[in-house]
This record gives sequence, C-alpha cells and structure tokens, in this order.
Amino acid sequence: MDRTVDWAGELDGAIVIVDQCALPGSYRTSRIDTVDELIDAIQRLAVRGAPALGAAGALGVVLAARDADSASARRQAERIASARPTAVNLRWGVERALAALPHGAEAVLAEGRALLAEDERVNRAASANAAELVLRRCGRQPLRLLTHCNTGALATVAWGTALGVVWHLHAEGLVEEVLADETRPLLQGARLTAWELARAGVPYRVLPDSAAASAMAAGLVDCVLVGADRIAANGDVANKIGTYPLAISAARHGIPFVVVAPSSTVDETLASGSGIEIEQRAADEVTHSGGVRVTPEGARAYNPAFDVTPAELVTAVVTEHGVRSPEKTVRAQL
Amino acid sequence: MDRTVDWAGELDGAIVIVDQCALPGSYRTSRIDTVDELIDAIQRLAVRGAPALGAAGALGVVLAARDADSASARRQAERIASARPTAVNLRWGVERALAALPHGAEAVLAEGRALLAEDERVNRAASANAAELVLRRCGRQPLRLLTHCNTGALATVAWGTALGVVWHLHAEGLVEEVLADETRPLLQGARLTAWELARAGVPYRVLPDSAAASAMAAGLVDCVLVGADRIAANGDVANKIGTYPLAISAARHGIPFVVVAPSSTVDETLASGSGIEIEQRAADEVTHSGGVRVTPEGARAYNPAFDVTPAELVTAVVTEHGVRSPEKTVRAQL
Repeated sequence: MDRTVDWAGELDGAIVIVDQCALPGSYRTSRIDTVDELIDAIQRLAVRGAPALGAAGALGVVLAARDADSASARRQAERIASARPTAVNLRWGVERALAALPHGAEAVLAEGRALLAEDERVNRAASANAAELVLRRCGRQPLRLLTHCNTGALATVAWGTALGVVWHLHAEGLVEEVLADETRPLLQGARLTAWELARAGVPYRVLPDSAAASAMAAGLVDCVLVGADRIAANGDVANKIGTYPLAISAARHGIPFVVVAPSSTVDETLASGSGIEIEQRAADEVTHSGGVRVTPEGARAYNPAFDVTPAELVTAVVTEHGVRSPEKTVRAQL
Repeated sequence: MDRTVDWAGELDGAIVIVDQCALPGSYRTSRIDTVDELIDAIQRLAVRGAPALGAAGALGVVLAARDADSASARRQAERIASARPTAVNLRWGVERALAALPHGAEAVLAEGRALLAEDERVNRAASANAAELVLRRCGRQPLRLLTHCNTGALATVAWGTALGVVWHLHAEGLVEEVLADETRPLLQGARLTAWELARAGVPYRVLPDSAAASAMAAGLVDCVLVGADRIAANGDVANKIGTYPLAISAARHGIPFVVVAPSSTVDETLASGSGIEIEQRAADEVTHSGGVRVTPEGARAYNPAFDVTPAELVTAVVTEHGVRSPEKTVRAQL
C-alpha cells in the first residue's frame, strides 16, 4: 500500500491522501490543494489517526506557506492545528513544520517530507518494541489479539501502531486471530481495520464493541492492543470511545492491555488525562445507522469521540523508545 | 399503549403483536395465525423480550392445541419453546399453557389469558420493588439512570421490567435523564427504548454502548437498570450482549447495578451462568449497517446475542417478590 498521507510533486504540488470515507467499498486517493480542503478532510475523517494527522498537519503548513505571507501562514496553521482538539499529533506536526517557516516554503516542505519518512520508521520501531513485550508477556505462540478502532497503515503515514504489532507478529506466524471491535461511532474497526487485516491475510473476526468483554470471559483474548490520540504525562491515555471499558474488562480478566504510539503522542505538558479535551461528535452518528434514522424524531445523543483510560489500567505504553513509565522511558523494561 | 402481545377474539382468533421490527418508523400490529408464523416472528425479533416471549409461548400453545391432536400439539409446543434458547421465559410460558392441554384448547386459551394479565401485575410489582430499592440506594432526588437494550412495555405484555422502574420514578418526578444504550446488534435501545421514553415524555439521550463507561466516569450515571433473559440459581444473569461490561464498569465506579425481572426469569434448575446457552446471531448484523456492507467481503463476525454477568457484580436481582438472594427471596432486604 502507498502512503496514507503524502506530498505529490514539488512545491506547486499537493497533499494526497487515501480517502478513508470511501473504504472498504473503494480504495481511492484524494488531492488536497488548500488549507480549507485539508480542514474539511480532517473533520470528515477522510484523514484520521493520530500519526497520520501529524503528517497531514505538517503538510498543511506547506499549503499555507506557499500561498501566503508569513503572518497569514501562521494564522492558517493555527486553524489546521485546531481542527481536531483531542489528537495532540496534529498540533505537533503543524508546529514542527512551522519551525521551518522562517527559511521559506521549500524548507517547510523539506521538514514535512522528513516527518513523513520518520513516521514510518518510528511506528515500525514502536510496534516492534510492543511485539517483543507481548511475546514476553503471553509466550511465543500463535496469539489471539483484540484491537479497537483503526491503528494500521491507514492511521499513520505507513505501517501502523497497535496494528503494526500484528504485522510484526504475523510475519513470524504468531497470530492465530485478531478480534477487531467494529468501533462506534464511525465503524472504523469494521471498515478500516478489517480491510487492512484482509489485505494482509491475517485471520480476523469483527465484533460489536460490547461483545469484547464476553470474548475475554470466553477465553478468546490473549492481549489487547490499542493506539492513542493523546497520552498525558502520568500515563493516562485518550483513545477512541470504548477503549476505557476494554481496559476495565481486560484488568478484570488479567489480560495485558498495551498502548502503542509514537512518542509524539505523549503530551508531557499535560499532568493527567482529566485535562484532555474530549470532542463530542454529531448526534446523527447515533440517531442514524447507514444513513437511516433509527431513533424517534427529536432524539438527543451522548456521542463523545474519545474516552480516557487511567494509567493504572494500562499494562504498558510503548513508543519507539521502548516501554514508557510516567517517570522515564526505559528500554530495559522490555 | 395496547398490549405488546395479546389474543384477539375467541378460540378461532389469533395472536396479535406489536411488530417491533417496524418501530420506531411505524407502529403497527401483526396477526399470527399459525405456529410457523409465531416461530418466524420470534426469530425475526418481531416479538422479543423475555416476559413477552413467555406470553407469546403460552399463546402459541393455543394455536397448536386448536389445530392438532394432543401429541402433535406437544410437538409443536416444543418447536416454539426451542425457538430462542437463552430466554427461559419462552419455555416457561409454553409449559404453563401445556399443563392445561388435557382440559382442551379452551382451557389452554384461558391459561394463556391468565398469564397475560399476570405479566403486567408481576412486572409492575417487580419494578415498584426495584424503584424503592433505587431510591433507598441513591436518595430521593431526580436520578440519572442508564439502561441497556429494551425492557419496557414492548419487552413484556405491558408496563416493562427495568424500564418499568423509570415509569414509577417518572410518575413521582424523580427522573432527571435516562441514558439509553443503543445496544448491538439490533439497536433495540436506540429503536425501542428511545421510542418508549419519547412517548412517555421522559428526558433521554441515546449513546453508543461503548460510551457508557465514560458517562459513568463523567458522573452522569446514578444507577444502572437492566432486565434479564435468564437468571441462574446463584444469581448470575444472562442479558443482551454488553450487559457484562456495563456491570464491570458500574462496579469500578461504585454505581448500583440493578436487575429487574419477573420470577419466571429465574431458572432454579441452573446452578450458575456457565450453563446458559448463548445464541450466536447472523454475521450480517455486524458486517452490514442499515443494510449496507461495511466490512470487506468475506469478513467473519463474533456476534453473541447475550452475555453472562456474574452475581458478584450485581447489586440486586429484583422480582415481584422483592430482592432475590441466591438463598431465598427476602422482601425485608428492600
């Protein structure tokens, strides 16, 4: 698969993304030429996943820098950084590209390209570290892995985070089955994770989010693997809605609960998860199903996009540097 | 609202049900004249809910008894009783009506009618007992109640079980809001519970099942109220998939988790929940959404209809006799 987010051509080129709203029905790319188009793509979730958003944010600054003076470019960059408040990587990518702005638009593009290349390296390393941890915890045998939302190549520039662990283990013949939560509200597990697993030839089943606890009780799960949208300094993890009950259930069943993310997802300025802003999404994602109204007219919804899992329920947060503890990053803990 | 399940006319009449597959888009009744039609209605979930299935089972024996000799009627009755394996009330209703078979079809109809009248009385009593318990636990103030699946009039002949508690409390002005889990796989919370709450004028919001734990963490839930499809002698509870993670989450947050059911849902012959047969439903309930395929071709699903909540996570099982403990039924425990 090509990169999920990339820059096509020279400075007069454009961002090209794999349009995730079209999957799994059709695999197609979209060209993004303006900041407004990028913000729209982010808000429609045509591009999503914390690491992919970091890359999109950096490339968005290229669009802003080539078409405007420096002050305008900074204003446009701030609009991009604010397009999704929970995922810290988006702002991180924007700010990293902005640092090159004084050297001109070409320098911003070079920084963006460096970030894209780095994203794949970093995620391969983080997921390799996590795979090592999982095998140490669960034993070197074909494993039954449960995951939530989408954390594969589609959520990153390439390769993936939590699903990257599956790619490493599958390459060694150590995946018996992946249980993929369908994941509300946008069914990104059913739509995107299933698509990536099918393409990779990994045995999988899709399940309602609420069936994960019963799968654990039935002994079908050796380890839970998820990504993160933001990780606080104390190790609290914001991730797609439904992650917190997974972690509570895994703790009850003594199943390792492993979070895999690039270190850019860690927000060291944030003391705990209580400071993480949680995006509320549109009610019609709950009041409608497949475009058809399922609730009575006038029904209201509680539809948070993310939840926060307290650090005490997390077996390990694994980045490209190894297992992260609230105090320090310790490769030796692997 | 009329009865959800009723018998229309004399012995040459028919079962009439509120067709729950048509809600909330349209409220219509269906006439059921044969055992085959009844089994189809049960399997399509046009009639569902443990107490309603008990009533439908009893009336199904009337259809069998008037159209066949006694031996054939018993064979037909066994087909009805087996149509949904998890809900014990279906078999209970069938067997109660069968006991009248030696006295003729008219006697079976009389027994069925008695059971219908009793269902509403019993559920009103069970939910009144539970309302009393909830107020004692949570204080006499407007409450935020979370529920799963549908346990209202539509799940019974009339009134409801867990949602019946809401009716009692709402009549006293003691319901601030009901959070209604949408409930996979068939969205019976979003479709049916929301419809009943809207009709009754109770403030409510629908939420993805996986958002319930974050609602608890946000302090939006004073008490969880659910029904049951079967309760084992030790107090383990089988209920719609997603009930078990709710109970785990409620326990973590110190929120009362109350199960409301007629005593006919208790299966004293079953030592524990591990003996409860869990129905696996069709994969397309997970691979499709609103009739549209959301997963890749060939995707498999893990789609259990029910899960089992261990007794240790249940604050109380409340029936028409009061709070039930594994040893005895103790009205005094209220």
